[in-house]
Amino acid sequence: MPAKVEDNQRRGWIVPVGGAEDKDSDPVILRRFVEISGDADARIAVIPTASRLDDTGARYERIFRELGAADARSLEYKRRTDVDHPEWLEYLRNATGVFLTGGNQLRISTILGGTHVARAIRTANANGVSIGGTSAGAAILSEHMIAFGDSGATPRAGKVSLAPGFGLTNRIVIDQHFRQRDRIGRLLAALAYNPFAIGVGLDEDTAAFIDGDDRLEVMGSGAITIIDASKLEHSSMGTANDGDCVCMTGIILHILNGGARYDLHARVATPPPGTLD
Amino acid sequence: MPAKVEDNQRRGWIVPVGGAEDKDSDPVILRRFVEISGDADARIAVIPTASRLDDTGARYERIFRELGAADARSLEYKRRTDVDHPEWLEYLRNATGVFLTGGNQLRISTILGGTHVARAIRTANANGVSIGGTSAGAAILSEHMIAFGDSGATPRAGKVSLAPGFGLTNRIVIDQHFRQRDRIGRLLAALAYNPFAIGVGLDEDTAAFIDGDDRLEVMGSGAITIIDASKLEHSSMGTANDGDCVCMTGIILHILNGGARYDLHARVATPPPGTLD
Repeated sequence: MPAKVEDNQRRGWIVPVGGAEDKDSDPVILRRFVEISGDADARIAVIPTASRLDDTGARYERIFRELGAADARSLEYKRRTDVDHPEWLEYLRNATGVFLTGGNQLRISTILGGTHVARAIRTANANGVSIGGTSAGAAILSEHMIAFGDSGATPRAGKVSLAPGFGLTNRIVIDQHFRQRDRIGRLLAALAYNPFAIGVGLDEDTAAFIDGDDRLEVMGSGAITIIDASKLEHSSMGTANDGDCVCMTGIILHILNGGARYDLHARVATPPPGTLD
Repeated sequence: MPAKVEDNQRRGWIVPVGGAEDKDSDPVILRRFVEISGDADARIAVIPTASRLDDTGARYERIFRELGAADARSLEYKRRTDVDHPEWLEYLRNATGVFLTGGNQLRISTILGGTHVARAIRTANANGVSIGGTSAGAAILSEHMIAFGDSGATPRAGKVSLAPGFGLTNRIVIDQHFRQRDRIGRLLAALAYNPFAIGVGLDEDTAAFIDGDDRLEVMGSGAITIIDASKLEHSSMGTANDGDCVCMTGIILHILNGGARYDLHARVATPPPGTLD
């Protein structure tokens, strides 16, 4: 469950990005992330835990500063013992935005899961702080995270593995590099287990900006595939053998490009402004 | 438009196969094709026009005979002048089943389009003869054929090209090698042009057996992805620039495995028998 939002607070933005977002020529996604994190007053904590590279965090520090943030700092959590670093935790608790880099989401969950770093991120979001992440950093944001799975258009039993994420929201299951790595089958399979959540498949260079009322807006050069299984008539996931295709009927699909919106409570899609005839 | 079915006739089966169907160990799809083509009395005309290989037709001749057909013969239409071959046309007109091999669907449409071979196939189907095809041979069966297109999960403007097929049915647009070649985006794009048709995405080794009343049954080891855009709320295909993702909201999706059915008139999916609780 997401951390409790106090009565006088509004939950902060949740911003999953599909990976490979533009960082140079026209970084609209990262620029907007700075804006919703306080703009010129933004202090952004970068968490490069997913990445095995040494310079991932420093790169985002530089980008966020160039985009006008007051400060940005990479907190180099690389093993579980790092979570006791007092200065990093202090920075995290005072941040106005937190951004998780790409890499492997299981590195984030195994290194930070159950620590006060994860708790600090959950509390921050409940108190209005923007939490974003790209690729693996997007996957970790929701309660049910796709850890790994086979690519392909067909959902197959046993071919997607879920793990607990940070749990900032339990409304969605996120998948990333969506078009680029052919992942609709594994996202469908993830929803076939339990269709209460909404599947959000993010193309590269594409982000979902989800406000405190769970209204999602699409930004970037790709599309977001929304899979709404709430009207599911049948799923064979309960009886399918390992590797079998899963039979699913009655799924609702929306393909949303930049400017389109989706209300995660009402389950209503709205095209970009000006495109309705 | 499909050829007119006379009052005392019932249209024959239409059997698109997703390619790479099992031909050796347990060829359930090809065996059933023989059964619905007259079984021990079946005379199957094989049309290898899509293929550039010399032995494609002969291979299917052998398989259909081994599966119990009374006769099978490959009609080697390889250029437009071949369509005047009187003996082949005679065989085709007396066939109880016609099977088109894989290859390139544009070879079939450019070599046979508008000829009396194409007309003979349309008339045969209207008179009750089973017409099947695999891969390119599946694509050609419907009125609107996907000629080629980019792979990927996102529908993009200009990234799929349609061409006229044999037109045995105009209810569906067929795509094949569906899971294996990541084609949901191009099938969505094809439907975005005009959502009247139903998208039928066939995995490899998977077939749609469509009876004379347009009831489809799934057979084989993969799945069929049905895309029903009749409830489409919005498509930006009319205004999108080349390469843009197409925004589409309100698509209905069904993933159907072996034994599942779909009624192409009522647009109702039914799971395999015995799987409903």
